[in-house]
Amino acid sequence: MAEQPVESGVSRRGLLAATGGFAAGVAVGTLLGGAGLAGLKAKAQEVPAWPWPYVKLDPDAVAQKAHASFYEGACNYAVAKAILSELRDKVGHPYTVIPYDMFRYGEGGVVGWGTLCGTLNGASAVIALVTGKPAYPKLINELMGWYTQSEFPRYVPAGQQALPTSVSGSPLCHVSVTKWAVASGYGADSKERAERCARLCADVARRTVELLNAHLDGQFAATFVPPESVKTCLSCHGKENLNNVRQIKTDCVQCHAPHET
Amino acid sequence: MAEQPVESGVSRRGLLAATGGFAAGVAVGTLLGGAGLAGLKAKAQEVPAWPWPYVKLDPDAVAQKAHASFYEGACNYAVAKAILSELRDKVGHPYTVIPYDMFRYGEGGVVGWGTLCGTLNGASAVIALVTGKPAYPKLINELMGWYTQSEFPRYVPAGQQALPTSVSGSPLCHVSVTKWAVASGYGADSKERAERCARLCADVARRTVELLNAHLDGQFAATFVPPESVKTCLSCHGKENLNNVRQIKTDCVQCHAPHET
Repeated sequence: MAEQPVESGVSRRGLLAATGGFAAGVAVGTLLGGAGLAGLKAKAQEVPAWPWPYVKLDPDAVAQKAHASFYEGACNYAVAKAILSELRDKVGHPYTVIPYDMFRYGEGGVVGWGTLCGTLNGASAVIALVTGKPAYPKLINELMGWYTQSEFPRYVPAGQQALPTSVSGSPLCHVSVTKWAVASGYGADSKERAERCARLCADVARRTVELLNAHLDGQFAATFVPPESVKTCLSCHGKENLNNVRQIKTDCVQCHAPHET
Repeated sequence: MAEQPVESGVSRRGLLAATGGFAAGVAVGTLLGGAGLAGLKAKAQEVPAWPWPYVKLDPDAVAQKAHASFYEGACNYAVAKAILSELRDKVGHPYTVIPYDMFRYGEGGVVGWGTLCGTLNGASAVIALVTGKPAYPKLINELMGWYTQSEFPRYVPAGQQALPTSVSGSPLCHVSVTKWAVASGYGADSKERAERCARLCADVARRTVELLNAHLDGQFAATFVPPESVKTCLSCHGKENLNNVRQIKTDCVQCHAPHET
């Protein structure tokens, strides 16, 4: 537990864990008598303060764990578990109480609906959990933008060959998978596509840790620039004019044909 | 704590909470001596067993709480908090340790990207957490299908007027918001649109609880039928043929123009 920072926002329970754990809590409770026990019981039932403490992680270790975890519970689970379990090992409580299995729902863009890529869903939840305001929207925005504009998959497990790559242009599972299937020639239902998604878990988990490490060091700087179509389309559809599109960052022409005003 | 069911999968810590709480744990630990304390410490740091226990909730109470919670942390947070905080009140641990603030990232389809509607993101996480396998994909599929085919918003806070409604045909925030803005005449950036999303939180939270209650009673029955275009398009793009679309449930022609083979 030596690596656990004692944050100002940490709960009493977190503090107990940091200073010797549950057994120390028992001793304190015994010494304090009835009132102490009641207070200890109340504190033990508190939600740990947000954001949860983050310590620098090794992007390579997290990437390797995310790749392996894909085959346990798919994309959303893999990215969340890879980062949260590393934090569990390094920080302890409160990362001991978060249920990784909850994240299984994000598979295939939420139980196969092809919406948000599960890697981004899991990564975004973790970023929000460990950074808080005002950082998390900036870091997630950067991750989402990077995802839409990058060649994937990059990760290659030891002793294996690289897979063909593609750029999704979108954070949606349906678009990401189909673009890769067309580019690679592998079926969307193939074991190669599954391995592509496993490697994408590694890529997204690694990038997430890089962003979190940079943020911890005060070195995070946003670089994502939305596609030109977003600016063009919002010039009419945005709040200054038609006001029928709230906000968007994805390339509009993936779904909408360009048109004259 | 009288309402807490003692599930077969519940952790020792959950059992301690159900049978008198943390103070009882202290007494047991004291009686058991060193080995008991060590065991208790280890158990206290375990992730609670999945799925977490569910007890029947009041859909109206959850809907009201979801509507109010939207103005604290937006859609994903509102639905997750409304259900999880009701379970916290009725079950106690482990719902005392889940951080609602983590769910803030889903706002606007993940920090404004317009992807998955945050109400569905939060509801899906909760469904997965409290039902486990093989139930959660079935319940989430039903919720997603219902969302795409229903008129929203339905919820009307006490003493207020109903708002205009629309059918999204999609689980995506961007589509859902823009269809409503066009149908209602209110701006996507308006306070009425925000209130529409707050009421949508109530609608989705209520439906989620109805599904969970039915599942608990062994009365859940799926009714969602995907749009005809899904069957038509997958007859060529599915795994038996081109195999470049993995799986999809949303109406294909929202983004793709119908075409001859």
